[in-house]
Amino acid sequence: MKSTITITQIAQESGVSVATVSRFLNGKVPVSADKKARIEAVVRKYDFTPNALARGLISKRTMTLGVILPDITNPYFATIFQEVQRCAAEEGYSVYLCNTRFHHGDAPIDETGYFRMMMDKKVDGILIIGGQLDMVEITPAYKEALNKLSASLPVVAAGREIPGAGCIFIDSENGSGVTTAYNYLSSLGHKDIAFVGGQPGVTITETRLESYKKAAAASGREVRKDLISLSDYYLPDGYQAAEALISRNAPFTAVITMNDNVALGAIRAFADHGLSVPRDVALISCDRFYFADYTIPRLTSIHHHSRRWGQMVVRTLIQAVQGSTENARITFPPELIIGESCGTHLQH
Amino acid sequence: MKSTITITQIAQESGVSVATVSRFLNGKVPVSADKKARIEAVVRKYDFTPNALARGLISKRTMTLGVILPDITNPYFATIFQEVQRCAAEEGYSVYLCNTRFHHGDAPIDETGYFRMMMDKKVDGILIIGGQLDMVEITPAYKEALNKLSASLPVVAAGREIPGAGCIFIDSENGSGVTTAYNYLSSLGHKDIAFVGGQPGVTITETRLESYKKAAAASGREVRKDLISLSDYYLPDGYQAAEALISRNAPFTAVITMNDNVALGAIRAFADHGLSVPRDVALISCDRFYFADYTIPRLTSIHHHSRRWGQMVVRTLIQAVQGSTENARITFPPELIIGESCGTHLQH
Repeated sequence: MKSTITITQIAQESGVSVATVSRFLNGKVPVSADKKARIEAVVRKYDFTPNALARGLISKRTMTLGVILPDITNPYFATIFQEVQRCAAEEGYSVYLCNTRFHHGDAPIDETGYFRMMMDKKVDGILIIGGQLDMVEITPAYKEALNKLSASLPVVAAGREIPGAGCIFIDSENGSGVTTAYNYLSSLGHKDIAFVGGQPGVTITETRLESYKKAAAASGREVRKDLISLSDYYLPDGYQAAEALISRNAPFTAVITMNDNVALGAIRAFADHGLSVPRDVALISCDRFYFADYTIPRLTSIHHHSRRWGQMVVRTLIQAVQGSTENARITFPPELIIGESCGTHLQH
Repeated sequence: MKSTITITQIAQESGVSVATVSRFLNGKVPVSADKKARIEAVVRKYDFTPNALARGLISKRTMTLGVILPDITNPYFATIFQEVQRCAAEEGYSVYLCNTRFHHGDAPIDETGYFRMMMDKKVDGILIIGGQLDMVEITPAYKEALNKLSASLPVVAAGREIPGAGCIFIDSENGSGVTTAYNYLSSLGHKDIAFVGGQPGVTITETRLESYKKAAAASGREVRKDLISLSDYYLPDGYQAAEALISRNAPFTAVITMNDNVALGAIRAFADHGLSVPRDVALISCDRFYFADYTIPRLTSIHHHSRRWGQMVVRTLIQAVQGSTENARITFPPELIIGESCGTHLQH
């Protein structure tokens, strides 16, 4: 272990006052070149690090942020988190990462335990992405914990607004991507378009499903329940939801999937049942993941610009931490990226 | 903001001594049920959180760990990190996550900046996975920074041992997986087996390449340079390395890829050049990623049990932080998982 030295000892050994050492370490007031050199020599000799804990007590800032999200192995969250951490580091913040869901199929753990953990660490601000926040039905206990949290420190909550909660809400989804997807499939001549994946009761699923139903109605088609096969957001869920859809023997020629994990799972299930994408089924997905350009077939999907969205939410949080009232919020219209999974590459 | 209350004020309002409140909050000594109820009422009323910073100054523990890794969007690191964070949370630790590589193709940022950041935050221990540590040539500056870091606090370094550095080194790779892969392809009758992906100069690449060369020699074959196509660890790298291999016009019937990202990229490149896996090229990969069972074709790959490995490294770190000399290190023999990409499913 390195030797421990205090500011007082640095002052004694370098022959300057404690106040001067303190001013030098805080970088607030210029110190003469001579004194600076003497202090630096002692700091180097003992490898002194100003104690962030002690500084935190004085400045009331810890230069730390907490991020709570469901599952970092999901590329959607990993992409967002990476940008959050990059931007935070640029501003001098260290970032805690807390997962609430560790294995596919497990029930998520209670997020409010992390609320306490992060409050206990005196983080300067918290970013919550998805999870219980994204449930259509918010439990009173969660809402109370969220209120308590946001009464103590700035909280950016990525989701639709919960009335009465003192968070900064930033929604990532308005369903317009699914409308684009539906209309694109319609333009290719598809009439029997299914909706695959996504967990019922979760806002993002319900918002996208609502858009799907509206788009079907706007095209003059009835909304057929046998073309809606929900499940969850992972590869096995896409597989299982596609199998469920096939088993119904309802005619369909195209599917919209919740995300690219679900898309991969669905394509695999179709293949295992002798159906090829795009030859037999056209597929369009949401939330373009990093592998979308490399799958067989390449995915046609709706890009929600998760990377840029991550930058925006963390900047909003940092501004709130710094007491700025400036609003960093920008909306990114989702973008249709045409790959091969709808078959249009065959027409070129 | 919530109202701030001190331990002294809690003592006054609940009518007990400061020492009793302190004992109650530390949970060290039992407090009578009557006093406990009175203290709890005040704590609840003011929503008091014991100040972790102040406690850290006293106990010299912050109950925080730092994890430094290249890129959380790489499923290999995401899987390990998730287990690290899960196990750490079970033991009451919060975990900082620091990425050193943010975009494919970017040069990694200087990790030693994170060393300072984490020391400044007074983390109880640090886990370093990959990155500069994994380079065959360690720079003197990095080695010095690593020495400084490990002189200050427990450091678990996932990589091969750097002589003179005071870290706990845990190697994740001995090349035996590649030997298994090579012998499996040989057993299927392949003679011209290529090696695709991985960055030159990085230990994991060189170790696996060495095993590949030894396995070839052990099979009585010459090691052909035109069958070795290195690049990096990502999808575009697999694509580019496979294209480079094809362009050499050297005959090959099978490839071993560095990881499942590289595998996906390579399969895509082969397809774009009219070569189907497994019909025209057999493919076996290392470091099984979460999507391996769902790609077309399903991947045959060497499972390195990243999840269990993550549990082991964080337990080793926590034991070191707690001053235990018990060794948590266990080795997991890599395991061959047979999918479809070597074509054996066609033989059943």
